[in-house]
Amino acid sequence: MKRLGKLVVVGVGLIGGSFALALREAGGVERVVGVGRSKETLEQARRLGIIDEAAFDFECAREADMVMLAMPVGQTRAVLARLAPHLGPATVVTDAGSTKADVVTAAREVLGSALERFVPGHPVAGTEHSGPDAAFAELFEGRRVIITPLAETAPPALAKVRAAWEACGAQVQELPPQMHDQVLALVSHLPHLLAFALVDQVARHEQRERLFAYAAGGFRDFTRIASSHPEMWRDICLANRAAVLAELARYQEHLGELQRALEAADGACLEAVFTRAREARNRWLEERDRGTDGKRSE
Amino acid sequence: MKRLGKLVVVGVGLIGGSFALALREAGGVERVVGVGRSKETLEQARRLGIIDEAAFDFECAREADMVMLAMPVGQTRAVLARLAPHLGPATVVTDAGSTKADVVTAAREVLGSALERFVPGHPVAGTEHSGPDAAFAELFEGRRVIITPLAETAPPALAKVRAAWEACGAQVQELPPQMHDQVLALVSHLPHLLAFALVDQVARHEQRERLFAYAAGGFRDFTRIASSHPEMWRDICLANRAAVLAELARYQEHLGELQRALEAADGACLEAVFTRAREARNRWLEERDRGTDGKRSE
Repeated sequence: MKRLGKLVVVGVGLIGGSFALALREAGGVERVVGVGRSKETLEQARRLGIIDEAAFDFECAREADMVMLAMPVGQTRAVLARLAPHLGPATVVTDAGSTKADVVTAAREVLGSALERFVPGHPVAGTEHSGPDAAFAELFEGRRVIITPLAETAPPALAKVRAAWEACGAQVQELPPQMHDQVLALVSHLPHLLAFALVDQVARHEQRERLFAYAAGGFRDFTRIASSHPEMWRDICLANRAAVLAELARYQEHLGELQRALEAADGACLEAVFTRAREARNRWLEERDRGTDGKRSE
Repeated sequence: MKRLGKLVVVGVGLIGGSFALALREAGGVERVVGVGRSKETLEQARRLGIIDEAAFDFECAREADMVMLAMPVGQTRAVLARLAPHLGPATVVTDAGSTKADVVTAAREVLGSALERFVPGHPVAGTEHSGPDAAFAELFEGRRVIITPLAETAPPALAKVRAAWEACGAQVQELPPQMHDQVLALVSHLPHLLAFALVDQVARHEQRERLFAYAAGGFRDFTRIASSHPEMWRDICLANRAAVLAELARYQEHLGELQRALEAADGACLEAVFTRAREARNRWLEERDRGTDGKRSE
């Protein structure tokens, strides 16, 4: 990739911080400016070598080659609106939000002529940790990044964002924004909701101490994503709530079927569901490992 | 512990196999006989050094110091009934079933005078893999084993089973059988049901290939337990279905609350649930790591 002169990262946590670190490590950027709400967080990011400089407004965007938005997705419209007047004529704007239709709508409403240099994206990677100290340069290696370009998106802007992600080690793929949101609703957003709900059920239980005492590895892994950032996940659920509600309704129907099977002591039905799920999951893991030459064995 | 002369393991898969391997490694047993339904599985266990000898009936129990039942829990009553006439006067019987009230009921009904040498147990450990080749000697290191003794249980029998588990590296604790089942329903059985249901929802979806293609690490960990043994989990759900149904009903109510919050775009409610869950989970992890001196950092 052509080395970026100046990158502005809005939100220097797990995703924004890892993007900056990965690009730096690949020699893909000269100077990184971090923008954020909290002085402490920006100072922490500077100490960790994620950013060179902190800023609290968007003046810094004027000479930027790229602006990466990596704050909770609910702030996207407000940030784009504040950012728009400061964008230089060649500045490309991209984001890392976990939902895309809402981001695209906001961009259309507030970016004006800069819309053609806006490239909506979503790295399908992360951990349950958040903040600058959770960031690491290898986060995107071998992971997918979904770009949801608009009809208006200028090919050079798209190429620049694609090249940056590839420099981070990611595999870039394109999807329409609506389809992105439908897919992620079921394989990411719903599981987060389910995990939060289960941990909360234990936490609200009168026997919670005993319950946690006997929770083991299965519970730990099932609920790992319930340690994720609450504000970020609130925003994702709200931004994609139509699709999340549709999948949640299907899931509740599905649980209703299992409930009736349990009530009827219908072992054959339970075993059929469990077997189908196990086979599908094991097949997925095999294909996944094959697709990445076993690189993603974690 | 006093070395066992002869151990009979019924079901030489992940749990039974690991128990035999761990006891052998600790020098806690002289000779292990495996009993099972499948000649191939028993032969595999012999090749893997799990058992010394295979058997297809319970004649072998007569001179055994201990019989460990580690087959799917739905077979417990039938196995105990077949085993009872062959038990020697000093043979201690224990089990590793994930449910305990049903096992205790079955034991009371079929064991007769041998009931005082029956020690119901449950190692709270496992992986999503099954079969003899999934077994390993370290499985129980630092893990909890719950014993649910009966009023009739003879103290020497209890001591023998406790010593065997401690030789495997486990921490032994006692709970009444009903309480065991209630606790495990929420922190183990319900999560398995939920994970199976989610994977099945993806597998039944018309877009399943695209969905699996974009499923990432969060989905992988959330659904790890959906790769578990279907027959085993059918039996567990059936054996503990009253408690599982009760927790499932509460969970569905809880999901209903989240659904209404989503419909109303009530971000504050969502964030409150997510925050409570995250804090509870992180506190649990901290206490868990402290409790085991960081030994269980996996």
